[in-house]
Formats: sequence, C-alpha cells, structure tokens
Amino acid sequence: MRISSQFDGGNIRVVSADESGDIRLKIRKDAGSAFYQWFYFRLSGAAGQLRRFVIENAGGAAYVGGWDGYEVCMSSDRETWSRVETRFEDGRLVFETLISDDAVWFAYFAPYSMERHATLIAVSQFSPRARLDVIGETLDGRDMDRLIIGEPGAGKKTLWITARQHPGETMAEWAAEGLIHRLLDDADPVPRDLLDRAVFHIVPNMNPDGSFRGHLRTNAKGVNLNREWDKASTENSPEVHCVLHEMAKTGVDLFLDMHGDEALPYNFIAGAEGVPGWTADDQARLDAYKSALMAINPDFQVARGYPVNAPGKADLSIATNWMRHHFGCLAMTLEMPFKDSAITPDEEEGWSPERSMKMGASQLDAIRAVLDQL
Amino acid sequence: MRISSQFDGGNIRVVSADESGDIRLKIRKDAGSAFYQWFYFRLSGAAGQLRRFVIENAGGAAYVGGWDGYEVCMSSDRETWSRVETRFEDGRLVFETLISDDAVWFAYFAPYSMERHATLIAVSQFSPRARLDVIGETLDGRDMDRLIIGEPGAGKKTLWITARQHPGETMAEWAAEGLIHRLLDDADPVPRDLLDRAVFHIVPNMNPDGSFRGHLRTNAKGVNLNREWDKASTENSPEVHCVLHEMAKTGVDLFLDMHGDEALPYNFIAGAEGVPGWTADDQARLDAYKSALMAINPDFQVARGYPVNAPGKADLSIATNWMRHHFGCLAMTLEMPFKDSAITPDEEEGWSPERSMKMGASQLDAIRAVLDQL
Amino acid sequence: MRISSQFDGGNIRVVSADESGDIRLKIRKDAGSAFYQWFYFRLSGAAGQLRRFVIENAGGAAYVGGWDGYEVCMSSDRETWSRVETRFEDGRLVFETLISDDAVWFAYFAPYSMERHATLIAVSQFSPRARLDVIGETLDGRDMDRLIIGEPGAGKKTLWITARQHPGETMAEWAAEGLIHRLLDDADPVPRDLLDRAVFHIVPNMNPDGSFRGHLRTNAKGVNLNREWDKASTENSPEVHCVLHEMAKTGVDLFLDMHGDEALPYNFIAGAEGVPGWTADDQARLDAYKSALMAINPDFQVARGYPVNAPGKADLSIATNWMRHHFGCLAMTLEMPFKDSAITPDEEEGWSPERSMKMGASQLDAIRAVLDQL
Amino acid sequence: MRISSQFDGGNIRVVSADESGDIRLKIRKDAGSAFYQWFYFRLSGAAGQLRRFVIENAGGAAYVGGWDGYEVCMSSDRETWSRVETRFEDGRLVFETLISDDAVWFAYFAPYSMERHATLIAVSQFSPRARLDVIGETLDGRDMDRLIIGEPGAGKKTLWITARQHPGETMAEWAAEGLIHRLLDDADPVPRDLLDRAVFHIVPNMNPDGSFRGHLRTNAKGVNLNREWDKASTENSPEVHCVLHEMAKTGVDLFLDMHGDEALPYNFIAGAEGVPGWTADDQARLDAYKSALMAINPDFQVARGYPVNAPGKADLSIATNWMRHHFGCLAMTLEMPFKDSAITPDEEEGWSPERSMKMGASQLDAIRAVLDQL
Repeated sequence: MRISSQFDGGNIRVVSADESGDIRLKIRKDAGSAFYQWFYFRLSGAAGQLRRFVIENAGGAAYVGGWDGYEVCMSSDRETWSRVETRFEDGRLVFETLISDDAVWFAYFAPYSMERHATLIAVSQFSPRARLDVIGETLDGRDMDRLIIGEPGAGKKTLWITARQHPGETMAEWAAEGLIHRLLDDADPVPRDLLDRAVFHIVPNMNPDGSFRGHLRTNAKGVNLNREWDKASTENSPEVHCVLHEMAKTGVDLFLDMHGDEALPYNFIAGAEGVPGWTADDQARLDAYKSALMAINPDFQVARGYPVNAPGKADLSIATNWMRHHFGCLAMTLEMPFKDSAITPDEEEGWSPERSMKMGASQLDAIRAVLDQL
Repeated sequence: MRISSQFDGGNIRVVSADESGDIRLKIRKDAGSAFYQWFYFRLSGAAGQLRRFVIENAGGAAYVGGWDGYEVCMSSDRETWSRVETRFEDGRLVFETLISDDAVWFAYFAPYSMERHATLIAVSQFSPRARLDVIGETLDGRDMDRLIIGEPGAGKKTLWITARQHPGETMAEWAAEGLIHRLLDDADPVPRDLLDRAVFHIVPNMNPDGSFRGHLRTNAKGVNLNREWDKASTENSPEVHCVLHEMAKTGVDLFLDMHGDEALPYNFIAGAEGVPGWTADDQARLDAYKSALMAINPDFQVARGYPVNAPGKADLSIATNWMRHHFGCLAMTLEMPFKDSAITPDEEEGWSPERSMKMGASQLDAIRAVLDQL
Repeated sequence: MRISSQFDGGNIRVVSADESGDIRLKIRKDAGSAFYQWFYFRLSGAAGQLRRFVIENAGGAAYVGGWDGYEVCMSSDRETWSRVETRFEDGRLVFETLISDDAVWFAYFAPYSMERHATLIAVSQFSPRARLDVIGETLDGRDMDRLIIGEPGAGKKTLWITARQHPGETMAEWAAEGLIHRLLDDADPVPRDLLDRAVFHIVPNMNPDGSFRGHLRTNAKGVNLNREWDKASTENSPEVHCVLHEMAKTGVDLFLDMHGDEALPYNFIAGAEGVPGWTADDQARLDAYKSALMAINPDFQVARGYPVNAPGKADLSIATNWMRHHFGCLAMTLEMPFKDSAITPDEEEGWSPERSMKMGASQLDAIRAVLDQL
Repeated sequence: MRISSQFDGGNIRVVSADESGDIRLKIRKDAGSAFYQWFYFRLSGAAGQLRRFVIENAGGAAYVGGWDGYEVCMSSDRETWSRVETRFEDGRLVFETLISDDAVWFAYFAPYSMERHATLIAVSQFSPRARLDVIGETLDGRDMDRLIIGEPGAGKKTLWITARQHPGETMAEWAAEGLIHRLLDDADPVPRDLLDRAVFHIVPNMNPDGSFRGHLRTNAKGVNLNREWDKASTENSPEVHCVLHEMAKTGVDLFLDMHGDEALPYNFIAGAEGVPGWTADDQARLDAYKSALMAINPDFQVARGYPVNAPGKADLSIATNWMRHHFGCLAMTLEMPFKDSAITPDEEEGWSPERSMKMGASQLDAIRAVLDQL
C-alpha cells in the first residue's frame, strides 16, 4: 500500500500506513503560513480492502467548522468524484471506504490541475471572441493569464471576473471554465447579446503557485491574496498587483470574484455592504443580481450567507470591498460549497465540478439582467 | 455529376443536371397531398466547380412567402450546415455556389434522420429519469415513441411536449433533443427542480412517416396532422389519435407543440387566444410564459408572430387550440425560423440545429417560471 | 409490447406478440427472391421481463446450417451488441432473454445503416488521400459510391476492394470501414508505404438497395449480385455492371471481395482455384496472402474454409472467379463469421463490428506482403 | 511578450526577450548534472509577429550532433505539434516563425505530462486485463508505477517493458501508451493471443522526477539511470533498484527498453551483442525480432543504428546489456528519433506522438513473432 501526493496540487503527509491499522495522515500547512485544509493524494495497492483513514490534524485546520457535514471526494478515473461518508470527531477527520481499484484519488474537492488550466487557455484562444493576455508573473514564475472576451467598443461595459484567489477552492476554477465555455459558445444567444454590450476580463486562476503547491488559501509566500487588495505589492502579492494594474487601465463596471466556502452548504453571494458610502443604488443592483441568479439557478439562494458588515466596517483588503470602494462598481463574491448544496442535495457527488460549471455559466444570465444598471 | 435523394428524408427530382448548364430541380409533393417545400439531396462529382441550381417549382410550394429572404443549407460533413446565397425570382429558387467537396448535401434545413431519432431514444432510456413508452403505430408501421421523464407523484403537474407534426420542420426535433438532453442532465439544477414538481411526456417526432419520406407537412397519407386534433382517427391520423388517447389518461397541465415557420424570421409563440372561453387567466399564463422565455433567451421575441384569432374563431383542429379547448391547459405553439433570427442574425449558419437545441433547452426555464400557475 | 422493423435495414414479421406467451416471428424474404436469413427489429415495452422469441420460418432460411451454434445479437444502445443464447430446433430459431431496457434491438449481426455509410463517405472525403467517385445508380436510385484512395502514378498497382454484395453480411461493411480508416491514418506507416506504390478503389457497399431493404443476399430485384459477374447488366445488376465498367478503365492487380459466412465460425479466404488456366504462380500469390494475413491476425486461419473447386470448374459468375479469369489478377473472397471465431472465441460479443474492423485493417498488412508479386 | 516554463516538464531560461530583437534563451542543466538538451516553454503575447529564437547554449548540449537536421516542435493547442525550420550554427540553435496565436508552446519533442501519465494509469486499471502495482518511490517521492497486464499461468512468458529512463525522451512514453492501449483492446486479436501465453510488466515512466523537472537524461539527483543497472541503489537510482527487485521475483524472458535518440533520424533497435557469452541463439532471436518489426512497420529499419560492441565489451551498467547478462533473456533498446524518420519523412510533424504510439503498438506483433523462441 502506498500513498503519494507529489503531483500538481497534491497535499498530504503520511503518519502511518501499514496494512493492519488505520491510515493516519496529516495535512501540510501552506508554505509560510499556518493555513491548511486542502488535501489531495493517491492511494494504491489496497484494492478490495476496507480502509479507514484518519486525518489527525484536522482540528487545527483553517475552518474547523468546515468539517461538520463534510464528506471526502474520491475518484478512480480522475473524472468522476463521488463522496465518502466522513465524520469529524475529537479533532480528527475519519472516513472509511471499500477501496475499489488499484489506484484511488482522494481530495478535499475535485482538483483542477495546472495542466487543465493550460488546456483551458489553449482552447479558448482559438475562439475569435477571445484573446489571451499575460498580465504578470507569480513569485514562483508562473504566468498570470487573463482572457479578454469580446471586442472593446463605445459604451460597452467592462466586466472583471476572477477566480481561485484561494487555491484550494478549486470549484472556483471549475465555475470559471463553465462561464468561459458558455461565453465562447456561438449557438448560445446570451453571450452573443452580452458581447454586443460588454467586454469580459477573466482571470480563471488568481493563484497558480498556491494551486500547484497544494495550498488552501495562500500564494507561494503564504500570503492570503484576498487580504491584499488595499496594499497589493509586487513583493507579496504580485497576483493581485498585476490585476489592479490592468483594472486601472480598463475601469470596472462589474466585479465578480469566485470562491468556495468551507462551512456553509449553500451557494450564495457576499456584497460590499459595509464599505463607506454604500448607497441604495448599490443595494438595488446587488439585490437585482442575486434575484436574477436565484430565479435562473435553483442551486443559488439568498437566505443563508455571510453576515453583512456594519456600515463603514468592511475590510477593504478584501477584493469585493476594495473594488466597490475604489471603482464604485457592483462588486460581489460568489461562494460555492465544499460540502453539498443543502437545498438541492446530491447524495452521490455532493457539490461537484459539473454543478460548479453550471453555476459559473448562470452568472451570464444574472449579468445580463443587471447590465443596463451598471 | 450525380444528384440523389434516395435516403432518409430525401426529396428532389432532377429535371436536368448536365455538366454545361444549370442544375434544374423540382421538389416532390408530399404523397397524397399538394404540399411541398422540403428538399434534401446529395450532389456528387462537382468538386471545384461553380454550380447554379434552379428549383423550378418553388413558386408552387406550400408557403411561397417562405422563399423571400431564405438561404439554402449546405454541408459537406453532415454535421455543420452553412447557408448559401439564394434568391427567389420568377417562381424559381436559384442559388449558386462553389462546390467544395466530392459530396455535398443540400437541404431546406439541417435534416434530423430517423437513425438519429433512434439513437436519441436509445441513449435517453439509460437515464434513471426517463423511460420509453411506445404509444402507437404509424400508417407505415413506425413506432410512436413517447419519453416519460420524471416520476409521477401526488400534486405533480403533467406536461406534454410534442414536436415535428410537420416533418419538414426538423428544427422542432432538434429543439426536442436539446430539451430532452437538458432534462436528463444531472448537474443542471433546473430539471432537478422541475422533476420534483412535474412529469414530462415528450413525443420528439410526431410524424415519423413523413420524416422518413421527405415530406413537408403531412403523414404517409397526405394528412396534415395539425388539422386533425378535433377529429383524430386511426385511419387518417393515428399519430395524433394515440397521443390524445394517452393524454386522456394523464390529463394535461401544459402543452407545448414545437414547429418551424417558413415565412417569419423570428422565434415566437402562438397561443390559443381564439378558443371559446378564453379568459384573462389564460392570457396571463401565456404572457408569463412568453415573458419568461424572452427574458432568458434573446433569440425569442414577442413583437412578431401570427395574428391572433378573433374570440371564438380559433380552428379547433389545430393542436394548441384543441388542447386549450379540451383540457383547459396552457397550450402553445413554438415556432422557429427556417431562415434566420432577424433580431439575432448569424450570417454563416442562419438559424441552426445548435440554436434550435438551445431554444428547446430554454423552454425548461420558461416552464419553471409558470409552473405554479398551471 | 411492440415490435417494429420499419427502419433502415429492418426485417421481421410478427406472427404474435402478446404479453402471455412466446413472441412468434417470421423473417421476410428478399423482394423478388426466396432468400431470407437477415433479421433486425426493435422490441419495446418489455423491460424487466423474461421473453422467449421463436423465429418460426428459420428452417427455410438460405443457409439452415447457419443456425447451428449461432447466437442472436442484441443491443440497447445501438453501439454494443452482445450475444443471446440461442438454439435451433424443429426448424425454429428460439432464444430467451431478460429484457433489460425499454427499447432493445435484435439482429442477425450488428447492423450497418445507410446513414453510417453516408457519414463514412462524408468523413473520408476530407482526407487529402481520398476522393469520392459515384460510378452508378442502383435500381432504387441510390448512389454507387467508390472511394479512390491514393494518387495514380507510373508503376503503381491498382487494387479493388468491394464489400457487402450480400447486404445482410454487414460485417463486410464494418471491415471496409476499418480498412478505409486505416488507409487514411497519417500516423500509420503501412498505408503510407502502400500508397507510394498502389491506388485503392473501394466500394464499401456493393448493394445499397438490399442493405436498406433488410435483404439477406439480393438487390432490389431479388438478384444475387455475386452470381452476376459474367453477365452483369444495367437491368438486373447495375451495381456490378458499373464496377466492371470502371475496372475496365483502371485494370486490376488485386481484387478483394468481403463477405460474411452464415455457417462457418471462422475467418477464411476463398480463392479462384477452379478457374481455367489457374497456375502455380496464382497459387503462390494466394498462399502468400493468406500466410501473411494469418501471421499478422490470429483471428484469421486457413485450416477451414470452402472446398476448392476442381480445376476449370469454378463458377465464373462469382466475383472472385470472374476477376481472376478476366483480369488475371490475384482475386479473393474474404469470409467472416456471423457466429464467432471458433479459434479465438469471445463469449460476450462473438464476432463483432470491432473485430471486423480490425480484420479489414489487417488486409493492408497482407496486401503489403504480396504487393511486389502482383 | 512573456516566456514561461514553470510547469510540468518545463525547461528554459530567458536571456532576453524584448520586443525588438531576437529571443535569446538557454537550456537549464539537469539538476546535479552537466546534461541538457530538453526544452519546453510557452511564449505569449506575440501573436501575428515573426519572431526569431536563439538557444545560445545549444553547442554545449548533451548530443551536439542531435541539432543537425533537427527541427523544433511547436503547438498552439497542446495536442498537435508541428515542426519549425531550425538551424544549428556557431553553437546556437536558431529558429524563426510567425507566431500564430496568443499562446504558443515550443519543445524539443511533444511533451508527455505527469498528469497524462496519471490518467494513463487511471484508465488502464479499469481493464480486467490490467492491474497497477506501485513498486517503489523516487527520490522526490513520486510513485513508480508498474502495470501488470495478463494473468500469470503455467508456462507463460514474462515480458518486461520499460520506457523513459531518460525523461526528455518523451516519445518513449508515447510509445508505451500506444503499446498499453493496444494490449487492452478487446477487439484486437494480437493482444488476446499474446496474453494467452505471456504476462506483461510495463513501467511506462522509469523517471518521473526527471520528467517533471524537465530533465533530459537524469533523475532528481542527476543520475543517468541507464548507467545504473549493475549498481542500482536506493540512494542513487531507486527507480532502477525497485524494478530489478521485482524482476528478481518474476524472472524475465524478454526485456524491451524504449528510448529516443537525439542524433539518428531512424527507428532502430540496439541489442546486447557485446555482453560476455553472447551466442548464436541470442543473435538469432534478436534478428528475428528486428526482422518481424521491420516487416510489419515500415518506420522501422535495421540499416542504421548504433555500432555493435566488440564481444565482451558491452557496458553492463546499461539496462539492455545488464538484462541479457543477468537474466539471459532477449534484451533490446528501441530507439526512436527526435528528428524525423528519414526513410519515411513527414514534413509537417516529423516523428510524432502518434507515430510513436504506432511504433509502440507494433512491438506486440514483433513480440508475437518471437514468443516461442523465448
């Protein structure tokens, strides 16, 4: 029996994995940081066995509340990820399953590899609607890829969409892929209409270094990018810095930042309500967006979400708050669950890449509903 | 050089096709009927040549108004259908094109073969959501296939969707395919929500005999099925008869009948406004459906369409009218263009199979918007 | 419960098919002929039931010996065809199976539709190596499609390959597809080498009318094309006539005619040994081909096959005999089993489309082995 | 304009890449080693420009002779790799091309990523013929994956196939993929026959660390694995050590080691002629294999290759020599070109992944030809 995680996005440490007892594991911390929760590893050599896994340091993970009601993702073909019954007890994450195949992959959520990212870029650039613009470089030397979709033109709105500031939130890049594919679909009338009136700037992976390194929430230096927007620097957060640099040139009419949430089993949107100078118009646009999204996509809801910041108390280091503050635009954080969508549960797969892609695609309907108000 | 149409859905007669001059053609009438407009043939042996085609009897076709602004569909791979510049003059349809390949197919609209229909059925039945029920037999001995999608249950609505009563309106079966595929997509939240509250009965091809025979509008006996709903019989219109027989068992809360329109370059819906006893509630539900569809799908519009019948003057032999009259349900005819969608034009392909599939899929959003009112 | 066969290649007559007892069937004769053995039908409405089928007139079929050891082909997805335990007793073919799905297709062998044929042509023509030439017309008005693969050039050999003279022998067109795909594969070194030295003329379907009509062995008029080569006429056998007409222009260095054999559970080749003037050279080339094929493809063997005609006693109306007689070329009939390959059995599928395609592809290796001797 | 190589298999250093002049590059050395020749990078931001690249340190690469007649591989979609006209002059590799797309990838040969490797393993394990056995761990902690294909049984031969000891020779893993896919193809009669008589042990990637790190020839520690077979150690060459450990258990009847050769534009096989005790029987089996392979695959030849070692002078640290020496088995090194196959050139792609896969698949025919002699 062997456990390995030395691959793109991999993260685990083996405490012990002998034939007789439990497989005892620990999650590595993000380099230069105390955060950890993302894991991804391959087990081989246990086909036909019932095996029990214990992640011993789960109790110290970034969001301990994320483990309640959470179920581990498992795949034998690296395409379909099903869920394994899991419990969190005494600070340890424990799951047990019959190992069906010689090699089985386990992860916090279905991984999205840098190779898939490269293919997403390669394929997208063949659409006459899209072009790639590399806007910067990460600390580890990876490209910051921006797709520009649509032709600039007088009166057109400028829409910025970012995903996966937190690299362990892979559903964010799955959603970006779904959104991009729909934008490039000739036969779909919605992107056609949108592109008559708007240009999209999409950064499908805001944190390539963290993605590759198997981090939960930070970049190569252990910096949480979503606490850097008011102080982005080439030293600590070049990923944010280069995006802001480009935004300064284009202006921004709408900003959508896609994330996963460890704790809440819901899809929801957080706005920038707590920024100074928040207006009724701001609220109306935000509500319009959320209403439109809820109308079109039953996986989305507004009853549950983050508590709203008190007026003027928003943390301006967070992308959504900063964007509203600095650009005055409609700015939103889309959160998708690591667990399942409690209002629309799927026993087999929970929240999944495929559902994330649909959620990403549905943003286009919501954007269309508010475009004239931007 | 050879022209042939002896295949599924084929229809053409060659008047002359020699190397020197025009290719002169006529469309065959539907068997037992004076209707004709659908054509579908293969040209071979003219690669690299500029050829001019003249359909000599176009002036006598069912909807002469359909030829104005119409462009012929052409394909070399049988998957992608582009448009050829076409004009209607002196009662003849004339188009000229450089023949790119050894074999090129021409048609009134992208064909939908009975083999593809069989595969649609075969594939659909593997979904746990769907089952096939053969509800009758055509005059030529073909099966009338109904897909039942969803589990019957207390309080659930019963929705009937039919397509391609007029066999030359192939976009109707393309739309049915798009709708069915979406209904069977596990990851899409809309069908999941709908199937909690409704059961679909779908007849993706109401006229298999006419489809195979290359008819425009009638069945094997030359009968226009959409003038039979008040008098359907096993002798003349078993296709309608068997559907009504099943509807009597299930009841009907919503009826949607999908068609193509030869003349209008628009997607639109015709209601049953002219039936006796049409109410404000009827109107409200119809308007709600059309508004919802327009909101979600920019290819759909309400500004253009058929003139509404005067109160009480509706022809009850037409499916939509009969269904409202007999079942009291929301009943609608969806019309898609043979030409292009003038409000959202596509120079290359015009209205297409892919766009028809999206239009079919969008019906689910509109249905969801009105479901509680049914 | 419904049984239908009104589709491309379909053939069955229902004697009785009620819920309680056996499903009693008869095979239709080829139009204008006493031959029958091919059947193909769809059963619907019996999912979950154990059903027993009796083909009552099996005892009068063309090759009664074909039923011994034969197992019926069944598919629910129209792609994978598995075998059903079958027995021949008292002149009736009897098989019993648990019906797994709402619609299940049964056939004598995996069907190859005219739609698939059209797609094979459409796709092949995009290769720079291939072009389509329509060389004639069937009695029902279908095109006779010849693919010319390779560029004519000085010293190049002319190879003619025909398939499916007998339309119920669908494995012949599966084999043709396999052979054509390999010939068009850029990365395969064998076709590259062959096309430097030879040009292929391939007629993947010699009998489109019979194929569509669900015939076993004859064309639209009930004529067995493989008894027409010494007397082909536009009246009775235009399919053969047009091929011979083209062969007269090109000459022929090798002729391969692909068939299925009802009785023998083996892949084998029949030569033209019995023609007048058969020489040791003829025998050597034939033996070289068979040896090469056996060496490369374990599904092929030489121990079993047809008895060899006595010298001078060959029936010259048969393609292979006629071709050797008239053109002096190496001429062969490849026979594949309807049953299984007894030396390399596959319990699940028996002989199959996939294996037929491999057998077709392997012909290229054998041709290459003898090319210099032609 | 940006050049990056921070990805799986990437290797380049940018000397200068400004808009005006040449793009000046250097290849990184393998870690802990003086070897280098493999490169792989992405260029972005130069679509529509004619750009000239200079690899300045090409003259110091492992096989300088490899640059003569070599052409760089380029891809925009990461699937199809075409060749760019290239010259080697004054110790520098120079190529110039019109950049067609926003992102373009350049490499020494079409890359084979560790993600693709993982998918190869995942997919293969679903065949009932195959199972995965992880036999060790690399210095960087990656799994050493062995596929066992076939069921052990009395009298069965044991065949070991290894690929990509030298990680920059990616064609070796492409060939392994082609060979594995063929072995798992139910419809192909050759693997069926082989698996009746033999069991395959395949290590498709002998050097995962070097592969990931973008090395040419060595592992994580700079060790050339193909000079370790007589002294393999867990410290320096665990990749070889674990393979030999397993071979000791199974015995070996045939050993095939797949490689790429920088210099020779030919596919060829090197034997173990120079080992002590080389016999006429050894020579006969080797010749039989090479003859069979040449007969079936025109891309293979025997006229060119490595000079044969003098008797007794073979370097026993090389896999093939060691294997013959230690196990007495038929042992061979298959070499494929980085350039093109000069006897069967392809102007567009040169030697390619697809052709490598065919070459891998053809080994099965050659193995079958000699199996009884092993």
